[in-house]
Amino acid sequence: MKIHDWHTGPYPARVRIALAEKNLQSRARFVSVNLWKGEHKQAGFLAKNFSGTLPVLELDDGTFIAECTAITEYLDALDGAPILTGVTPREKGVIHMMSKRAELELLDAISVYFHHATPGLGPAVESYQNAEWGFRQRDKALRGMHYFNAVLKNQPFVAGEVFSMADITVIGGLIFAQLVELPVPEECGALQAWYARMQERPSVKNRVAMSVPTGANI
Amino acid sequence: MKIHDWHTGPYPARVRIALAEKNLQSRARFVSVNLWKGEHKQAGFLAKNFSGTLPVLELDDGTFIAECTAITEYLDALDGAPILTGVTPREKGVIHMMSKRAELELLDAISVYFHHATPGLGPAVESYQNAEWGFRQRDKALRGMHYFNAVLKNQPFVAGEVFSMADITVIGGLIFAQLVELPVPEECGALQAWYARMQERPSVKNRVAMSVPTGANI
Repeated sequence: MKIHDWHTGPYPARVRIALAEKNLQSRARFVSVNLWKGEHKQAGFLAKNFSGTLPVLELDDGTFIAECTAITEYLDALDGAPILTGVTPREKGVIHMMSKRAELELLDAISVYFHHATPGLGPAVESYQNAEWGFRQRDKALRGMHYFNAVLKNQPFVAGEVFSMADITVIGGLIFAQLVELPVPEECGALQAWYARMQERPSVKNRVAMSVPTGANI
Repeated sequence: MKIHDWHTGPYPARVRIALAEKNLQSRARFVSVNLWKGEHKQAGFLAKNFSGTLPVLELDDGTFIAECTAITEYLDALDGAPILTGVTPREKGVIHMMSKRAELELLDAISVYFHHATPGLGPAVESYQNAEWGFRQRDKALRGMHYFNAVLKNQPFVAGEVFSMADITVIGGLIFAQLVELPVPEECGALQAWYARMQERPSVKNRVAMSVPTGANI
């Protein structure tokens, strides 16, 4: 299988971490799509993913699977331990809920802030910006950090007792937060401590090095 | 289990349709949360779902599961045929991708349009509106309709040969489109024909009648 992505991207990180957690990275070949040049908004890539977002998984039969949750579901059903999306009905429900909540309240909110209320990927890529909306989403992301801090005061992982896709989505959020210089508030000690633990995981630590395109700046 | 929802809501429709397709509706008790009174934004409900959205599944052990995809995953793992989220890795990946795409490009876009560029649920509930963003999302939804029309020219269902969660998400989008009077464009004949077929399914036809709160206007 091929992964079309960009080595430092926060959404690509979600699939890279999932691959490494499941020890499937040797089965993937990475194809670099340069975000900073807007390659993900050009016709060639849009034919692979109508929404123009990274990452995209390309199967050997030519099928393209976009969206991090969808790719994680594919990988989880394919092979490898641990299971990241849950086994029992309750686990599946809670993990999917918390992962979606991490998108809504953190990762996607920071993405909108980046693309709408900062220079984002530059004027050639950011053809429309709505700064007011972007700043609202930044505030939403800060509220989200407080929410996940409260969750992590009571349990070791985002969806409960076990590392899961929901942790990976929050990690993606905090990777993006660092890129846009939106630090986790000081009072969110549980979230900070959890993130320090997460950054010790090889899957998180080595995600960028998994593939660095020749001559690229990290 | 209990379903906290509102009988005519487009997102609630997604779970009602999933329940009926899997013939599990007799195991659910419906608890009405009045969208038009903004009950989903009040503290009592926010304790159940931080994001303040419907529907929410409440398990017998008191666990709350929000987000339609998460609830569908729960139901699919629980029991009942058919499976709505796929069996093989490829099926799971494609169904999750197409369902997420239907959210991004259609259902969620229409929701933002409704809440930001129309009176939405009224001034008491819509405390902040960004009309420019709302109209952008309306245009995005129209583009999404053309996309799904192109998909349905080539295959009978949104994710391929079999009815799935992805169809349900597009149905949710078109239910919302009707509420905001955003008709499917005339040139989208394949999408129109597919939707006519979908409306014949008992799960879709009978979703509102599954529970109508006493004295409520449909």
